[in-house]
Amino acid sequence: MEVPPPLVLKRPLYVPSKTLMGPGPSNCSHRVLEAMSNPVLGHMHPECLQIMDEVKEGIKYIFQTLNDATMCISGAGHAGMEASLCNLIEDGDVVLLGVTGVWGHRAADMARRYGADVRYVEASFGRALSQEEIKFAFETHRPRVFFVAQGDSSTGIIQQNIRELGELCRQFDCFLVVDTVASLGGTEFLMDEWKVDVVYTGSQKSLGGPAGLTPISFSKRALTHIKQRKSKPKVYYFDILLIGQYWGCYGTPRIYHHTISSTLLYGLREALAHFCAVGLKAVVRRHQECSRRLQLGIEELGLEMFVQREEERLPTVNTIKVPFGVDWKKVAEYAMRKYSVEISGGLGPTVEHVFRIGLMGENATVERVDMVLSILHEAIQSIKLRAVKAERSKI
Amino acid sequence: MEVPPPLVLKRPLYVPSKTLMGPGPSNCSHRVLEAMSNPVLGHMHPECLQIMDEVKEGIKYIFQTLNDATMCISGAGHAGMEASLCNLIEDGDVVLLGVTGVWGHRAADMARRYGADVRYVEASFGRALSQEEIKFAFETHRPRVFFVAQGDSSTGIIQQNIRELGELCRQFDCFLVVDTVASLGGTEFLMDEWKVDVVYTGSQKSLGGPAGLTPISFSKRALTHIKQRKSKPKVYYFDILLIGQYWGCYGTPRIYHHTISSTLLYGLREALAHFCAVGLKAVVRRHQECSRRLQLGIEELGLEMFVQREEERLPTVNTIKVPFGVDWKKVAEYAMRKYSVEISGGLGPTVEHVFRIGLMGENATVERVDMVLSILHEAIQSIKLRAVKAERSKI
Repeated sequence: MEVPPPLVLKRPLYVPSKTLMGPGPSNCSHRVLEAMSNPVLGHMHPECLQIMDEVKEGIKYIFQTLNDATMCISGAGHAGMEASLCNLIEDGDVVLLGVTGVWGHRAADMARRYGADVRYVEASFGRALSQEEIKFAFETHRPRVFFVAQGDSSTGIIQQNIRELGELCRQFDCFLVVDTVASLGGTEFLMDEWKVDVVYTGSQKSLGGPAGLTPISFSKRALTHIKQRKSKPKVYYFDILLIGQYWGCYGTPRIYHHTISSTLLYGLREALAHFCAVGLKAVVRRHQECSRRLQLGIEELGLEMFVQREEERLPTVNTIKVPFGVDWKKVAEYAMRKYSVEISGGLGPTVEHVFRIGLMGENATVERVDMVLSILHEAIQSIKLRAVKAERSKI
Repeated sequence: MEVPPPLVLKRPLYVPSKTLMGPGPSNCSHRVLEAMSNPVLGHMHPECLQIMDEVKEGIKYIFQTLNDATMCISGAGHAGMEASLCNLIEDGDVVLLGVTGVWGHRAADMARRYGADVRYVEASFGRALSQEEIKFAFETHRPRVFFVAQGDSSTGIIQQNIRELGELCRQFDCFLVVDTVASLGGTEFLMDEWKVDVVYTGSQKSLGGPAGLTPISFSKRALTHIKQRKSKPKVYYFDILLIGQYWGCYGTPRIYHHTISSTLLYGLREALAHFCAVGLKAVVRRHQECSRRLQLGIEELGLEMFVQREEERLPTVNTIKVPFGVDWKKVAEYAMRKYSVEISGGLGPTVEHVFRIGLMGENATVERVDMVLSILHEAIQSIKLRAVKAERSKI
C-alpha cells in the first residue's frame, strides 16, 4: 500500500503577521528575519565558525561573563535546562529546586530522569523565595545542585537575590543553575560577579532572536567539576565538553559534534548585534520603564497585578489578575481576532487566574504598552457587555 | 568588572554564497530560504499548529508510513538519533549496533550513556553488512534494539537489506532503528512495509530544508513498548510521548512541551511541499541517475570509487578514493577558493582516504554533476602540477 502525497502541502504556506505580547516568543526585527533568508553554510565552514565566534562574544556580554565554556545548545530553552542539569548531575546527587511557578517543577522532572535525588523549596503563592527560606532548605537538604529561575514566566515573579544565592552556594559547595529564559534583558544579571555556575537564556524573548538556539555558559568551577565526573553526562547531544569543543571554547581544534543550523545562527547573531549596540543597561532600563508604565495603566483600568510586591514583579512577563466573572480566553481571543495582538492566559498554577502580557525586545516600547492597555480594556469591556447581554436574554 | 560589548558585532553579518556538494547540509531553494524570513508565530498558535500538521503529513509521505507517532525533534539529526535510542532503551537492554562507518559508533556512545549493554556487528572496510553477518550477531547477542544507518555518510555505503532486517527483528522480538539522515530521497525507504520501528532523517540533505528540525516516526509496536516502560525515558526533551502530545499525534489535547522554532518549520514545510510535489519516486530516480552519471565521470577521469560494489554505493554521498600522492585538503581548498564549491574529505575511518561528493536536493542535477566533475579534475591536476613544481624547485 502506498502513502500518497498530502493534498494540504499543495496549498501555499500561510503565516499571518501578529504582535506577540504573550510570554514569548516575541517578534523578531526585520534585520533578524531578513538575515535568516541568507544561504545556508556548512557547519564546519570558516565563515560559519566565525559567526559562532561572534555569537559567543555576544553571549559573554549579555551574561557579563568571561567564561570559556560559553556557547549555544542547538534546541529550545528546554534544551538549555536539560544541558545544565545533564552535565552537573550524577546518580544520587541531591538537587534542590527553587519553585516560584512551573519551571522548578519542570527542572525537577528532568533532574529525576538523570538520577537525581530531588528536593524542593517552594515559595508562597505569588511570592519570590526569600533568602531565609532558601538557606533553611540548604541546611536541611545539603544540595549538590541548586536550580532557580531568575524570572518565572508562569507567575511573573522575579527572584532578586541571585547574588546572595551565589554566595550561599559557595558556602555549601553547591552549584548554582539560573534560568534567565524570561528575565534576561529585563533585569540585571551579572554571571561572574554573582558567582553563577550555569546560566542559560531564551533567544526568542528580550533578545529578539529566533527560537531554536539556546545561549548557555558554565563557570570555570562547574567545568572543572564536569571534567572530573565519575560517569559521562547521560546525553551525548548535551555534553558540554563536546559541544564546547565544536564551539572552539577550550583552545583545542574544533571537532564536529552536530550540524548546527546556520539559519538560526544568522538570526541570533543579528539579534545579539542589535542588543549589544543598544547596550545591556539601556535595554534593561527600557524594559523596566515599559513594565512600570504598564503597571500604572493596569491600576488606572481598575485591574490588579498578580504579584503583590512591586519589587518581585518580572518586567518582561507581566501577570494581571483576571477580573471576577470575566473569561480570560474570550479576552485573548478578542485581542487576537480584532487586532492580531497576543495577550496570553496563565500557565500551570496561574491558569485561568491571570493574563500574561509580554514586553520584550521589539515589543518593549511605550507605544506597544499603550496599545496593549487600550486593547485589554476594550476586550474586557466587550466581553463583560456580552456576558450581561447573554444574561438578560435568559430573563 | 564590566564585560564590554564585543567590537566584532559592530561589523555586518557576512554570509558568502556557496554550492554545498559535501555530505550536507545541501543548498536550500529560494522558496525555502524566503519562507524563513516570515514573521515568527507563537508555538501554540493555531496557524503554527496547522503548519506542524502539514509537516507531519509530509513526513508520513516521505517515510511511507501511517504511524500516528510521526513528528519532528527540535534539534539536529543527532537529536533524532538520541530520541530514537532514549525512548527505546532501558537500563541493561542489549543494543546491537550495525557499523558501516562512524554512525554505528556514534549511536553506541549514546546508547551506553542511556545504560545499554552495547554490542557491535561490524562490516568489512568499505562493505555493507550482509544478512548473514547480522543474523549471526542476532543469534549471539539477542538484542532488544538494533540500530543501522541505511546510508552511512562517512563511507558512502548503503545498506540495501532493511526489509529483511525488519523481518529479522520481528523474529527476535527486537526493535529496528534506521538512520536515514543521508539516504532518504536517494533510495527507496518504506517504513511500514519493511516493518521499521523507528526512523529519522536529516532535514538539510535531500529534503532541502534547513538544519535544526529532525523528522522522526515510531511504529505502533514501538509506541506500545514505550508506553509500557518501567522507567521514564531519561530525557524529558526527547520524550516522544510528550513531544507527540504537542504535535497532536495521539488525538489528545495539544500540550506545550517546548518552544518550537516557527522559522525552521516554515523552511521544512516548504521543502516537504516541493518534495511531495515532485514525488518520492521521481526524487529517488533523479538522485540515482545523478550518482550514476557521477560514477561514470569518475571512472572517465581515471579515479576510483571507494565502495567497490556498485549496489552498495549510496547515491547521495559519493566517496571517491584520493589518488596516491594527492593532498585531499588542497583539492578541496582549490574548489572552494576558485569556485565556492564544497567538495569534502572523509570522516572517521575514511579521513584522508576519500573525497565525499554530495548530490542532494537542489544539487542533484545533471548540471551540478558535470560541474563538480570538471572542478574535481581541474583541482587534482592543479595540485599535482604544484607538487611536481615544488619537487623540481628542490632539485
